[in-house]
Parts: sequence; structure tokens; C-alpha cells
Amino acid sequence: MAEPLTDAEQLCWRAFVESSWALHTRLEDELRATTGLSMSDYHVMVVLSEVPAHRLRMGELANRLVFSPSRLTYQINSMVKRGLVRKQSCPDDGRGQEAVLTDTGLAQLAAAAPAHLSTVRESFIDHLDAAELDVIARVFTKIRKAG
Amino acid sequence: MAEPLTDAEQLCWRAFVESSWALHTRLEDELRATTGLSMSDYHVMVVLSEVPAHRLRMGELANRLVFSPSRLTYQINSMVKRGLVRKQSCPDDGRGQEAVLTDTGLAQLAAAAPAHLSTVRESFIDHLDAAELDVIARVFTKIRKAG
Repeated sequence: MAEPLTDAEQLCWRAFVESSWALHTRLEDELRATTGLSMSDYHVMVVLSEVPAHRLRMGELANRLVFSPSRLTYQINSMVKRGLVRKQSCPDDGRGQEAVLTDTGLAQLAAAAPAHLSTVRESFIDHLDAAELDVIARVFTKIRKAG
Repeated sequence: MAEPLTDAEQLCWRAFVESSWALHTRLEDELRATTGLSMSDYHVMVVLSEVPAHRLRMGELANRLVFSPSRLTYQINSMVKRGLVRKQSCPDDGRGQEAVLTDTGLAQLAAAAPAHLSTVRESFIDHLDAAELDVIARVFTKIRKAG
């Protein structure tokens, strides 16, 4: 049984969970309204756009996104239908599968990025000073590694 | 057109968005697996459990949750079907509607809370020192007010 949260912990948790949840909702709603993409689509495309040849093994992609295998399969199949990614056998062993960002996917990411970035600035980044940016970066990197 | 993010801003944003998204996914998956509740259900019940008589006008509840009216209506109707909340006319003006937490809802919240709290501790709170708790509380309170 976990210890109850102290007042300071409670304050921190509630501020974080409510605010980050509202922010995710806003980003998702705006992205869908302007581009038809979900945040999951967007994250998959960002990750693939940053790796060599824009491709990654499904297992590695699931790790990066912290998705279960079944959640990732569902997500990627949906993106394949919309032409944003394709699946191919891994060149090294021929057994595993890779997800590859298509030219259409890359173009849609490039088209979606500026408006998404504006919202990120307006609703988050522009409210933080240099010290706060550092603390947030450090804390969430630590949490991610522990998770 | 928004300024591109600096390196420090980019580092902060990516750490936050990826880590908080993974955390929400984990909390949602664990909550669903152990209780059948979604994070939205849970948040609605927490908010209602903390107000007098466990009831709130729909508009005020939407504000607190940063939900659009249509999203809230969908959410509340789903919870009404499961007996977690009920809807009633506002006593003051008889026109607006309120959402009221039922005894079943309160009992399910109480049953769900300990395991949820353990995950919150393990995956977030226990990694932060006192100074970090303060910065996170301050930053996300500020973001929430600006949103």
C-alpha cells in the first residue's frame, strides 16, 4: 500500500496531471481539426522522420512510443491505410517488420508542423523561463528513463 | 508564423511531451485493466467527489476538465449508463443541468484510488525532490491558467 501524498506532492501531481491532460487534449483537437492527424500519428511520423532512411523496427518503434505491441500494430495499420507509412521486412534478418515513413507521410508532417509548433509555443514553451525549461527537461527525462 | 524552438526549448518540449504521454498511457491502461474506468471517468469522479454535495453544473465541470460541451455530454452520458453519475436540473434556476456523483461512483472511486496512487508515486512523485515538486507545481499551475 502506497503512502498517501503529502500536500506538496498532491499539489504538484494535480497541477501536472490536469494541466498536461488539458494540453494534450488541446493539441490533439487542434491537430485533428487542421490536419485530420491524431497526436499518435504525429508522434509516429516525428520519430520516423528523425531516423536514418526514415525506418525503424516495429519493436523499437513501440519502445520509443511506449506502446504495447498490439497498440502499435493497430496504429501502424491505420496509418498504412492512409498512405502515411508502409511496412516492409527488415533487411538484416528478413523476419521482423519495419515501419517506413512514406513521402506522403513526410509531406503531411511538414505541412502539420508549423501550426502545431505555434500551439506548443503559445500554450507551453513561452510561459517558461530558462531555469524552468531546464528543470522540466531534467525531470521528464528522468521519469521517462524510470518508466 | 512561430519562431522555431531553440535547442533548450526543443529538449524541454520533447522530454515533457513524450514522457507525459507515456505516463498518461500507463495510468490509463492500468486503471482500465484493474477497474474498467478510463482516466476521463476517474477525473470526473475526483472533481465531483471534492465539491459540496458531489454535484456541479455541466458548464463548470467542462471548464474544470477543459472539455468541450459535446465531449463532456458524451462522457457524462456514458457514466450515467454505468451508474457512476446522474444528471439533474440545477436547484437555483431549474434550466441548467448538473452532474451528481452517485454512491456507486463514489465507491468505485474509493476502490480505484489506492492502486492508481501507487502508480502515480512509482512512476512520477517518488522521482522528484522538494525543489522539483515546487517547480512542477508552479509551472503547470501557470500553464493551466494561461490555457
